[in-house]
Amino acid sequence: MLDEKLLTYDIEGNKAHVCMLAKQKILSKQEAAEILAALSSLQKKAESGQFKLDCSLEDVHMNVETAVTAVTPHGKKMHTARSRNDQVSLDTRMYMRDAINELSAALMQLQHSLSQLSKNDCPFPTYTHFQVAQPASVSFWAHAHWHGIERDLQRLSQLYERVNCNPLGSGAVAGTTWNIDRDYTSKVLGFSGPTANPMDTVGNRGELEAELLSAICLAMVHASKVAEDIILLSNKRLIMLPDEYSTGSSMMPQKKNPDPLELIRGRAARVLGLYVSAITVMKGLPSGYSKDSQETKYYVMQGVDTSLAAFSMLAKILPKLKFNEDKIIEELEEGYSCATELADLLAAKGVPFRKAHEITGGIVKGCIAKKKYLSVLSATEVSRLAGVPIPQKELGEATSIDKVARFAAKYKIPASSAYSSALKQREKLLEDAHSLLEKEVKAITG
Amino acid sequence: MLDEKLLTYDIEGNKAHVCMLAKQKILSKQEAAEILAALSSLQKKAESGQFKLDCSLEDVHMNVETAVTAVTPHGKKMHTARSRNDQVSLDTRMYMRDAINELSAALMQLQHSLSQLSKNDCPFPTYTHFQVAQPASVSFWAHAHWHGIERDLQRLSQLYERVNCNPLGSGAVAGTTWNIDRDYTSKVLGFSGPTANPMDTVGNRGELEAELLSAICLAMVHASKVAEDIILLSNKRLIMLPDEYSTGSSMMPQKKNPDPLELIRGRAARVLGLYVSAITVMKGLPSGYSKDSQETKYYVMQGVDTSLAAFSMLAKILPKLKFNEDKIIEELEEGYSCATELADLLAAKGVPFRKAHEITGGIVKGCIAKKKYLSVLSATEVSRLAGVPIPQKELGEATSIDKVARFAAKYKIPASSAYSSALKQREKLLEDAHSLLEKEVKAITG
Amino acid sequence: MLDEKLLTYDIEGNKAHVCMLAKQKILSKQEAAEILAALSSLQKKAESGQFKLDCSLEDVHMNVETAVTAVTPHGKKMHTARSRNDQVSLDTRMYMRDAINELSAALMQLQHSLSQLSKNDCPFPTYTHFQVAQPASVSFWAHAHWHGIERDLQRLSQLYERVNCNPLGSGAVAGTTWNIDRDYTSKVLGFSGPTANPMDTVGNRGELEAELLSAICLAMVHASKVAEDIILLSNKRLIMLPDEYSTGSSMMPQKKNPDPLELIRGRAARVLGLYVSAITVMKGLPSGYSKDSQETKYYVMQGVDTSLAAFSMLAKILPKLKFNEDKIIEELEEGYSCATELADLLAAKGVPFRKAHEITGGIVKGCIAKKKYLSVLSATEVSRLAGVPIPQKELGEATSIDKVARFAAKYKIPASSAYSSALKQREKLLEDAHSLLEKEVKAITG
Amino acid sequence: MLDEKLLTYDIEGNKAHVCMLAKQKILSKQEAAEILAALSSLQKKAESGQFKLDCSLEDVHMNVETAVTAVTPHGKKMHTARSRNDQVSLDTRMYMRDAINELSAALMQLQHSLSQLSKNDCPFPTYTHFQVAQPASVSFWAHAHWHGIERDLQRLSQLYERVNCNPLGSGAVAGTTWNIDRDYTSKVLGFSGPTANPMDTVGNRGELEAELLSAICLAMVHASKVAEDIILLSNKRLIMLPDEYSTGSSMMPQKKNPDPLELIRGRAARVLGLYVSAITVMKGLPSGYSKDSQETKYYVMQGVDTSLAAFSMLAKILPKLKFNEDKIIEELEEGYSCATELADLLAAKGVPFRKAHEITGGIVKGCIAKKKYLSVLSATEVSRLAGVPIPQKELGEATSIDKVARFAAKYKIPASSAYSSALKQREKLLEDAHSLLEKEVKAITG
Repeated sequence: MLDEKLLTYDIEGNKAHVCMLAKQKILSKQEAAEILAALSSLQKKAESGQFKLDCSLEDVHMNVETAVTAVTPHGKKMHTARSRNDQVSLDTRMYMRDAINELSAALMQLQHSLSQLSKNDCPFPTYTHFQVAQPASVSFWAHAHWHGIERDLQRLSQLYERVNCNPLGSGAVAGTTWNIDRDYTSKVLGFSGPTANPMDTVGNRGELEAELLSAICLAMVHASKVAEDIILLSNKRLIMLPDEYSTGSSMMPQKKNPDPLELIRGRAARVLGLYVSAITVMKGLPSGYSKDSQETKYYVMQGVDTSLAAFSMLAKILPKLKFNEDKIIEELEEGYSCATELADLLAAKGVPFRKAHEITGGIVKGCIAKKKYLSVLSATEVSRLAGVPIPQKELGEATSIDKVARFAAKYKIPASSAYSSALKQREKLLEDAHSLLEKEVKAITG
Repeated sequence: MLDEKLLTYDIEGNKAHVCMLAKQKILSKQEAAEILAALSSLQKKAESGQFKLDCSLEDVHMNVETAVTAVTPHGKKMHTARSRNDQVSLDTRMYMRDAINELSAALMQLQHSLSQLSKNDCPFPTYTHFQVAQPASVSFWAHAHWHGIERDLQRLSQLYERVNCNPLGSGAVAGTTWNIDRDYTSKVLGFSGPTANPMDTVGNRGELEAELLSAICLAMVHASKVAEDIILLSNKRLIMLPDEYSTGSSMMPQKKNPDPLELIRGRAARVLGLYVSAITVMKGLPSGYSKDSQETKYYVMQGVDTSLAAFSMLAKILPKLKFNEDKIIEELEEGYSCATELADLLAAKGVPFRKAHEITGGIVKGCIAKKKYLSVLSATEVSRLAGVPIPQKELGEATSIDKVARFAAKYKIPASSAYSSALKQREKLLEDAHSLLEKEVKAITG
Repeated sequence: MLDEKLLTYDIEGNKAHVCMLAKQKILSKQEAAEILAALSSLQKKAESGQFKLDCSLEDVHMNVETAVTAVTPHGKKMHTARSRNDQVSLDTRMYMRDAINELSAALMQLQHSLSQLSKNDCPFPTYTHFQVAQPASVSFWAHAHWHGIERDLQRLSQLYERVNCNPLGSGAVAGTTWNIDRDYTSKVLGFSGPTANPMDTVGNRGELEAELLSAICLAMVHASKVAEDIILLSNKRLIMLPDEYSTGSSMMPQKKNPDPLELIRGRAARVLGLYVSAITVMKGLPSGYSKDSQETKYYVMQGVDTSLAAFSMLAKILPKLKFNEDKIIEELEEGYSCATELADLLAAKGVPFRKAHEITGGIVKGCIAKKKYLSVLSATEVSRLAGVPIPQKELGEATSIDKVARFAAKYKIPASSAYSSALKQREKLLEDAHSLLEKEVKAITG
Repeated sequence: MLDEKLLTYDIEGNKAHVCMLAKQKILSKQEAAEILAALSSLQKKAESGQFKLDCSLEDVHMNVETAVTAVTPHGKKMHTARSRNDQVSLDTRMYMRDAINELSAALMQLQHSLSQLSKNDCPFPTYTHFQVAQPASVSFWAHAHWHGIERDLQRLSQLYERVNCNPLGSGAVAGTTWNIDRDYTSKVLGFSGPTANPMDTVGNRGELEAELLSAICLAMVHASKVAEDIILLSNKRLIMLPDEYSTGSSMMPQKKNPDPLELIRGRAARVLGLYVSAITVMKGLPSGYSKDSQETKYYVMQGVDTSLAAFSMLAKILPKLKFNEDKIIEELEEGYSCATELADLLAAKGVPFRKAHEITGGIVKGCIAKKKYLSVLSATEVSRLAGVPIPQKELGEATSIDKVARFAAKYKIPASSAYSSALKQREKLLEDAHSLLEKEVKAITG
């Protein structure tokens, strides 16, 4: 029962709601104290794994209420001024807050692994159309992926603010006429404030879930790209996979297969499917609550679990990769990867770019025919073809893989993500709210 | 050829690039002046629709370069320090900036239509499980949808910042060794600054396109929800569709069909499909540029056009809706929509909520059996069943649809979207950059 | 561990493989006998739930081999002339065969529920654009849905033949040079014959899984349509939901919510998402086996479980529906549902159809204005408007809902699906093969 | 206006409908003759491109009716006993029949290109996890892909039968009470017979469209796999791309990019998106016709056009590929691709398979360390490690790439697809029906 993941949030939410009902005199202090004591003891059981959800009680909410009512008859008053619709929205938002924070931490861990690689200025090929393009460096490659993840972190950070609004008080769909205090529950649950409209809150369930899945989906596309690079380049032996992250074949004794990387790639597909399910569930539903939207709770949980595992796996693999410099240089030479530099050199000497491009194309063709690399070209030869004098030194620099790769190595990964302090602050706010709620509970239970 | 949409952006981008090359002495002033003059004259032709793209020239970039080179041979130098990969990324980002601004304006127009409805405090049903839930008001309904759109605007606004980075200088995949000035091109094209990594910029093409499609997708889900409400409630004659937005049947003479609303609902599906295409294109591609990603350019254009049409249609229909108050009241009475208020009243008088809920359930059942509405209940009867005295006045208020609906009418739509000044500022910045660029061009062409 | 579902298939497949190895003298009779005895005893344990898969052993195949090898060292020879790639393909195909048969049976059960309704010739509305169109009957409605499902059954039946080919012998990707007998394993496992190409068999893993998900998806769309009809028409009280398949609200005491129907509708979305995942996993993978495709095994299992539950739930609900004839007639009268018949009558009397359509439109408008139904129109009035004489009797028949509905009642559901004998035959073939295999096993173990 | 594609079908359908109305005496012979003459002249205009659809007339149906009515006032009678709902279903089914036939022909063309390659018994690597697995041959590779396409053809062939049912007579949603002859229109339009239920026919619009998209999607996945193979292996220079199907880079002069293959791969994504759109449109719609489903008409047209272009491009590229045998042999040697054969040899000599697998793993590791290939191993060395005598001749055969590849070359592509005669028969039936209809028309127009 995936609702297990919501249990602690449901108890916490119940505590906040009951404290508020007491504060507003909707419950007497005595009633509230009994309920809160029951909730606290339930929480302890839940934390130690002793409280198992009973499927016959439909959902986590009825499980908790039933357990409380078994201890005190006032449990029946706990649901005053509330509906399961705002309650599940509360639980899901609390879950998503933690999920976003965990995902952010996992992506920062992945960035950290990339940072480690970025100390490596070993030349590394770039590709376009999966054909060798220009020389770069391992650090350049790491820097590129680091920045893709940085946008993922930004998206998560911005989404957090949309999630972090308090749905309590939305009732079934139209709010409640009870004199409740939504600011109070916002404060003790760490929300930035109450949501604006009950029907929007309850009826657009699935929207933020879908947005989270979409953010995860893009992050998984980034991860799948890293995985694909390693799979393809380990095939070419430019990268060597660590033994502990590759597996053998049951039939072919020589194999070292990049299974975990293939799974990362494959699981990007799973998250896309979950997103599609979430949108398709919502599309065309009328306003107000429809049961269909309950499905989105499970989609988001599956998406979070799937991607956390993938990010963490990738973060572990990256620092263990070995880069085979000899093979890499060979790949770059054979790919005539300095041709662009050469054309740029010609253009710098006054040949119009399109013309320089054309001449260089001819030079490369000639080299291929004679099976020689660009780095052995003589300045005389090139000057003649270009129609302008090209100094040997400059030619040498333009066609030296090492020189060109060093240019790429200038890209430096920042010390940490720009969103790392935001993450810390969010975690702090949640902790503070938690302590405040506990204080409030104690003030009532004595 | 969908590339038509990129033509003016491509010309503008060329201008900025050439001004920069001149400033950096990569082109002589004379060369730059000739190219810029050719570009300006091309721009005029483009604006008056006289310049048609030639499909045999592959893409918009080669079309522009060919046209310029026909006027001046220096056209061949225009591509110095650039690749089609950063050029198309530039065009697409400029297109997406305008698209986001247009979408924002269209959504604000839709919000405006909802604002007009929000003056209407006619009672209106809320539903859960498409069964009558509680009385609310037309204004409450409009308020709910307004807030959904507000989140759409927030998403677009945040995405704009990610889009608004200058890709020029990324080259084919690994940047360029030419001494270019990316801050300069950023300034004259209105970007907040250059992108961080060339391979990330070029290789993650499709990511921001997908994010835009995802943001549109959620907005279309919101629109489809409004459409579905109107379709369903016009079937029940609670809402009357304007003649000009409904069509007849070729076979059934009595019909007034909500065709445009059905299309809005259906087109949410189209946008989801485009998003799926975009993610599926990218998933599993290696780093660097792959041609597949070109597809995403068309997906985003189709998604933008589809949704702009839908938002604008909905904005026109909303103010023309007629609400049939008699039928609405009947719907609410027949749906025993004040039952929650009644249960709350009992609970307020001290009956535990779960008990109050149960008693009210029994009262409703009795009413259904006797075919009478809650509003005719006597206080004596209810007091007896509740076991606590319920004053007639309070009972009357709890079961009066009008009274309860008035409660919902308190939700007030803000004067304008919180993102409207951001939109204006973005538009202003683009205009300013445009003027600056023209000034720079003139400084060179004289 | 979802691999549990494959356990019995894996054991059965192992038995067939070992019998074949013995027949081909690749294993000695003694070796085979020991392995088969171990497999049989494992099968008994598995059937009684005593054998649990150990996750640390990677997959079901290694679990089984390890268990066998614990009993006899010859277990290490069981994998001769085989790879996990053809083995998992075997298990999955065996699983899918049973799944297709179960799905077919569940859909036939749903057809049976529709058959029961088809005895009900109570009038029933048809809708276009969710506006009342023409009168039909409950039997007509059931007949329509019956035929949609009939196509689902056809699809499953045709897919079965594609699934029912024996992958054993495909090896890891390129077959095997061992002298195996693929016809023999086909026969004892009930396959129509061996697959044609090893790389196609192993590398296109996911294709038939996706096709099954697509077939399920269309069937779920059909189910979602039935569910949507009942949800919408129970809102209008034309259909009354059985108590045992509707739930209450935690806040609103008057509610009777169609939860299970909403879940059926929502779960169509889940199956679509699983299909998307399956295709996205495969798209762009190179030939041969990639680990990513393993994911599709789980997608198909989730899709099968989800849809089986939905079909079976719907089959239970349908016969319990109550149709409220009074409300239905009212709906049809208020919808002027006989307008088409009236226009047809005019056309039959010589008025060109487009003209007749127009005149009838006018008549309907007049009726709406005077708040009267078509059924009370006088022939004199209609004759005058039509410009041709319309006899009262024929007018009465054209505008009588009962008469028109009776016309629709002529659609008769066949006694059973055209695919029911195919299903029985498939099940019989599987049973026969199973018996044959047991006989072969006994011939070896003695 | 995509409806252009339906124009000839609409005219043809109108002819059949009018002939039937005449035969049933619903229209007089004179009326029918005038309408048919107008339709025939319109058809000529349409064929010569002189008839352009007018967007203000909503759809193709109203365009045709308006054009006919401009010639004869009896045009207004043409719509008798029909609705646009069955009319568009007719047009779409006629379109889909032709589309399925065209797709089948294009896929057979692709099979033909593979057949040509299959004469090539040059060794070729197989991969699992994109790591070299075992030696096979180009012919084996072609054979694998041929068989994937054969299943695509089977699916299309089976779908054709579901499409090829006559929807005319379904009316708007509930059929018609006119005394029409559906068998007659079936015959002259080449359908196998009328559909079973009007509401099913009209309300499940989109279902067969989605199924066609799903069939295309799987075929595109097959095509994307071929494309991916060529992209990856041309990177490794095992395959050389023809110049005419590769493009240069605007920046890098040395590049030869596989653009068309990348587009094929990318467009598989587009078709998946179209499928998702189609299903999402339908999911949750109630019975009967909803306008949303109109969208599916465009999805299917886009999907057909996209995939026809892709299949035809791939069919052209395949015969032009050059296979670099030296590089292929090197790839296979370096990948120790005969390891499985070696392990099998050991197992054949009595070493239990798991043990043989392990020993061979050790041998491979040793070879890698000593940088030598399996083909140079001595029988003495292997015998010692295996613990059983291995004859040199058998060892040589097991480790000779050529020998093993020859084994794979035994897979022979059939002379033609099993579905080619079915295609011819379908085309013949359509032609015959067309002639019959023309004869019927002439019998009336004289």
